[in-house]
Amino acid sequence: MDNHLYLKTITIIGLGLLGGSVARATKQFFPQIHIKAYDSCVETRQKAQALGIVDDVFDDIQGSVVESDMVIISAPLGVFGEIAQKIIPCMKKGSILTDTGSVKGAVIDAIAQYLYLNPDIYFVPAHPIAGTENSGIDAGFASLFQNRKLVITPLETTDNNAIEIVKSFFQAFGSVTEIMTPKHHDLVFAIVSHIPHLIAFNIVGTANHLEQVSEQEVIRFSASGFRDFTRLASSDPIIWRDVFLNNREAVLEMLGRFIEDLFDVQRAIRYSDGDKLEALFRQTRSVRQKIIDAGQEIAKPNFGRNE
Amino acid sequence: MDNHLYLKTITIIGLGLLGGSVARATKQFFPQIHIKAYDSCVETRQKAQALGIVDDVFDDIQGSVVESDMVIISAPLGVFGEIAQKIIPCMKKGSILTDTGSVKGAVIDAIAQYLYLNPDIYFVPAHPIAGTENSGIDAGFASLFQNRKLVITPLETTDNNAIEIVKSFFQAFGSVTEIMTPKHHDLVFAIVSHIPHLIAFNIVGTANHLEQVSEQEVIRFSASGFRDFTRLASSDPIIWRDVFLNNREAVLEMLGRFIEDLFDVQRAIRYSDGDKLEALFRQTRSVRQKIIDAGQEIAKPNFGRNE
Repeated sequence: MDNHLYLKTITIIGLGLLGGSVARATKQFFPQIHIKAYDSCVETRQKAQALGIVDDVFDDIQGSVVESDMVIISAPLGVFGEIAQKIIPCMKKGSILTDTGSVKGAVIDAIAQYLYLNPDIYFVPAHPIAGTENSGIDAGFASLFQNRKLVITPLETTDNNAIEIVKSFFQAFGSVTEIMTPKHHDLVFAIVSHIPHLIAFNIVGTANHLEQVSEQEVIRFSASGFRDFTRLASSDPIIWRDVFLNNREAVLEMLGRFIEDLFDVQRAIRYSDGDKLEALFRQTRSVRQKIIDAGQEIAKPNFGRNE
Repeated sequence: MDNHLYLKTITIIGLGLLGGSVARATKQFFPQIHIKAYDSCVETRQKAQALGIVDDVFDDIQGSVVESDMVIISAPLGVFGEIAQKIIPCMKKGSILTDTGSVKGAVIDAIAQYLYLNPDIYFVPAHPIAGTENSGIDAGFASLFQNRKLVITPLETTDNNAIEIVKSFFQAFGSVTEIMTPKHHDLVFAIVSHIPHLIAFNIVGTANHLEQVSEQEVIRFSASGFRDFTRLASSDPIIWRDVFLNNREAVLEMLGRFIEDLFDVQRAIRYSDGDKLEALFRQTRSVRQKIIDAGQEIAKPNFGRNE
């Protein structure tokens, strides 16, 4: 492909938190790029127009990709296959197809099966490690990618120049790029993202249907630890349903280990094995400081809430 | 007891995050009160003196309580019995004994057995719902109790005037008081505090000893969820070891429910039951907003980290 492809027009498929943030960041860092967008929801399309964060909004997904230099799919994982089947045949020769999906094996499976429909496009699977617990187009903001990672999981056949174009696009937003295999990506994110979300959803669920402790009590006393989990547990239900369904193998592997360790701790409590508990708590203590030192967390106690 | 007991002198036993914050808040809100303190650690005693947050520092625990109008035990739960046995006989007639322990049944068991040694003191079990992940005297601050709850769990025999004195002492620091039975307190805090800490310690432990994903990867990609758990998992190992050993029954009960629910979710993932996952995630989603509405959490996405 052309080494110096210039992104004149891009298309964003799906204008949620991520897609809406890509649109805003593009407006800010590449004001010369023409932004086209499609969303399956009419209210979202109207909002995108009203907010002025894209240039053209389409109610026809195929029309939205025609003549674009890069198409970014930013939709729940469950609809990637359907989207790919529709748009790939309409994409311009030499254009790039990328995405923001948080599971890569399943995204590649869903998309690669339709690449034969248009052998002249370049597919670059990507995952911006960015987001908040909020969702929808209103929740997006241009600085979402600032100092965050962008993981690219190329196929063996992925064109290097296409990778470079996706990299430099997100680097302009402040992202730092890493390359990983899709399989390793899915294992890493099972433990750093999917299992944390799963146990957050789960403990909020457990607290919700206790008969001994009321919801009001849980809310009133949530500052003693519980509230930290409610942030992840307020994330988008469809996005997360699809994450678990599409990264099943790695999630079940990591969840199995988590449960095994939890049984070990449960047993230590039952048999008053204070030494075992203390050893675990000493071991886990240092991790936060390492995350702060790596620039991935703020250093303030209580996430700065007391300020 | 005297309805208008005036706190001229108090003693703080244990100058960690909580005790050190009580000292600072007392200096700020009751500058006329003389503050005596004991800590088992010589470095902490020296720091207390250097910081000037107490008036007299004792290396003799019994001497520290003599002639005080109120003694506040702020130590790990495992040493409450030993402390009570030593100080109760030395306490002034008509004085108050209170504490900041986060399990109330075990605190009452540890202390009540020695009350016969001095029938003229008033025991008011209390739990300020305040803290950060940091520990030690340096981590304390005067505003720690601002807008936080103080739960008092009286015995049937506890004097009402003594309760009022403890209440108004913490109310001056900004606390809002609630009354609960010790048994109910321990169930409530098992689910809102002890289980959240336990699963945070546990997932950080699980991530620490994976062979497929390196510690460096966990740290680099922690912003996608994992880092939220590292806050609770960096809490004081001794304090938390003692919480689990001293609230065993309620913790095992709540942990059993959490694990039961987790198996249900695990099964839904294994058999691709998207409807079940989505239903749970929709149900848990609203809890955070209720906590924000109740003034127990800040409303900013990502705990305000992006600002």
